[in-house]
Amino acid sequence: IICVPARLVPQVMQDCAIKKVKGVSIISAGFGEADSKGRKLQEEFLRIAKKAGIRILGPNCLGILYPPQHLNASFAPFLPFSGKVTFISQSGALLDSVIDWSVKDNYGFSAMISYGNKSDLDAPDFIAWAAKDPYTKVITLYVEGFSDGRYFLEMAKKVTPIKPIVALKAGRTATGSRAVSSHTGSLAGSYQIYKGVFKQSGVIMADTLTQMFDMARALAYQPLAKGNRLAIVTNGGGSGVMCADYCEELAIELPVLPRELIEKLDKSGKMHPAWSRGNPLDLVGDAGPERYEVALEAVMGSEVYDGAIVIQAVQTSTQPLRNAGILVEVQEKYKKPIIGAFMGGVISEASIKYLQEHGIPNYDDVDRAARAMWVLMECGRHYRRRKL
Amino acid sequence: IICVPARLVPQVMQDCAIKKVKGVSIISAGFGEADSKGRKLQEEFLRIAKKAGIRILGPNCLGILYPPQHLNASFAPFLPFSGKVTFISQSGALLDSVIDWSVKDNYGFSAMISYGNKSDLDAPDFIAWAAKDPYTKVITLYVEGFSDGRYFLEMAKKVTPIKPIVALKAGRTATGSRAVSSHTGSLAGSYQIYKGVFKQSGVIMADTLTQMFDMARALAYQPLAKGNRLAIVTNGGGSGVMCADYCEELAIELPVLPRELIEKLDKSGKMHPAWSRGNPLDLVGDAGPERYEVALEAVMGSEVYDGAIVIQAVQTSTQPLRNAGILVEVQEKYKKPIIGAFMGGVISEASIKYLQEHGIPNYDDVDRAARAMWVLMECGRHYRRRKL
Repeated sequence: IICVPARLVPQVMQDCAIKKVKGVSIISAGFGEADSKGRKLQEEFLRIAKKAGIRILGPNCLGILYPPQHLNASFAPFLPFSGKVTFISQSGALLDSVIDWSVKDNYGFSAMISYGNKSDLDAPDFIAWAAKDPYTKVITLYVEGFSDGRYFLEMAKKVTPIKPIVALKAGRTATGSRAVSSHTGSLAGSYQIYKGVFKQSGVIMADTLTQMFDMARALAYQPLAKGNRLAIVTNGGGSGVMCADYCEELAIELPVLPRELIEKLDKSGKMHPAWSRGNPLDLVGDAGPERYEVALEAVMGSEVYDGAIVIQAVQTSTQPLRNAGILVEVQEKYKKPIIGAFMGGVISEASIKYLQEHGIPNYDDVDRAARAMWVLMECGRHYRRRKL
Repeated sequence: IICVPARLVPQVMQDCAIKKVKGVSIISAGFGEADSKGRKLQEEFLRIAKKAGIRILGPNCLGILYPPQHLNASFAPFLPFSGKVTFISQSGALLDSVIDWSVKDNYGFSAMISYGNKSDLDAPDFIAWAAKDPYTKVITLYVEGFSDGRYFLEMAKKVTPIKPIVALKAGRTATGSRAVSSHTGSLAGSYQIYKGVFKQSGVIMADTLTQMFDMARALAYQPLAKGNRLAIVTNGGGSGVMCADYCEELAIELPVLPRELIEKLDKSGKMHPAWSRGNPLDLVGDAGPERYEVALEAVMGSEVYDGAIVIQAVQTSTQPLRNAGILVEVQEKYKKPIIGAFMGGVISEASIKYLQEHGIPNYDDVDRAARAMWVLMECGRHYRRRKL
């Protein structure tokens, strides 16, 4: 790890060559991104490194964090929690903010890599590494521009059948891509081309940072869906309707409840007389845990559904913690994906924590829950296609 | 406030008529939404009320909450904080969840109204009330279907030039609107028609619950923008680029920095040599409060910009609380809107609280900040048009 002033870096690189160091991470800034003097310094240390076979991360980067091994080889002030998501970021500032956010939001990472000027190693190299990392289940990527689009395409094609990649591309518009040029000196390239590359290689595109980590959380903790037929179980009619809207917009199917399933639930003696007998399966506002249990058991056990979104609006009879327990149990029993949409707040806080700790991703807003389920279906499709 | 079993409600209504009660709120359920027996009961108490000139909220609703006067005339377990946003909701369950969330998120409301079966009073009546309420600055509305679209259109047209209305319509898709029918017995209607009605009356449409309350927060606490020319000030290049992308997608202009402004900042002695000299105005990662101050002063004082989004990625030299103070001061000085995009987390938490308490809305993700600024510009346009 090199963090001496830029002008001293070539000398340190020379020392590394003598000591037969295999890889270095250069935190120092003031190279290719700064001025012509910096560019020359970068060329100089690169020449030395190439000759000695040294691979380089950076310069002008935050470094590497590897929470499963408690390694913080970066200038970030603290480590995030250990998790199953690797985050590869062209922007160091963004990585810093994400760490700060993740600790507050209880979001875990298996690795975080800020690659700065990518003078040698680039995003595809880190993707290749993450594909082999035993702690990583999902790879997330913030990228402004690629040096070598073809290399990325080849690598991503190899990796996505093994581990999903979710990418956020900045500089998608004319204004944004002008800002990229002024910011990093690299070209953002046409977003249409990126879209094509991502699609061809099975990379999932996110529109926002929140969306990227939302989808990664689902992929990290839930199984992929075997089809796109969803059941929505809810104790709030309105939230159920909104969820159905978002699902239709994402081409998720909501098959009607089969007649035998309606009869079974009617006979259970647990349902409210006014329950919806449809999908969304509305348990009615005063639903206690028994109703959640019998309904969720029914849809998850049915051949008609590939997964479920369970909505909880906190109401007088709601028992958030017991409901959370039911989601965890039923998911373990049927091995199909369940996504929680327990609306967050003071009362529901403990139940949401319970869900997340037991591998059920939960989202405040039903549109985020629908998007999380969509990615499990989309990646499921991708894997099945690759298998054929 | 009536909360006796449904079958007793007509009798209570009779008693109210004798006592010359002017208005009642019926919390009880089991009427029009339940079965034919319930429908008859509803017709019965309506007949009595009409004859006696009694206006009715509900039945089958959560009731009314009025935090500025500490009034909780609902079956929600607690009051939200007092604020400037009225929330009118067709769904009681949603209202319940929103209260729970708002307390955790420090989001204040001037009033919350759940109107259930709308046997008499409907959304437009509550909008008319909120337009006159001294505590309300913004009206938010969750709606599944209108009984009388023309009445809504007329009322909204009158109110939007005085107070902005932000609406979330559920049942926008075929699946969603089928769910509305099964849920409330009312028709959702074509979303295209709703869109037309909203647009014609100057109502802002939200896609999600989060988006609705995000926009309402901006409208409640910041002045409207006088044009759509925005400056982005940031200490993170990547976040600046993403913000520029979202702005372009929302047709927000990002004028380049005027030459005299660049010279002024260059001469200030406060800027990093590598600052962007563009818009986004990138202060570079090690920016302290002095840089934020001189840059924000410059753009807010310039005739070229109608407002600013200020992004803060927490980095080693970042001083979140001092930065927050600068936003508040500069906003008060120039009276143009400022939106914060301080990425939330453990380190930035106190500064975000400071911003919110001093009237600067803050959003975790730059896309939400861009959307909040957009609504200040959009409503500004609407008001100017009405004034002409």
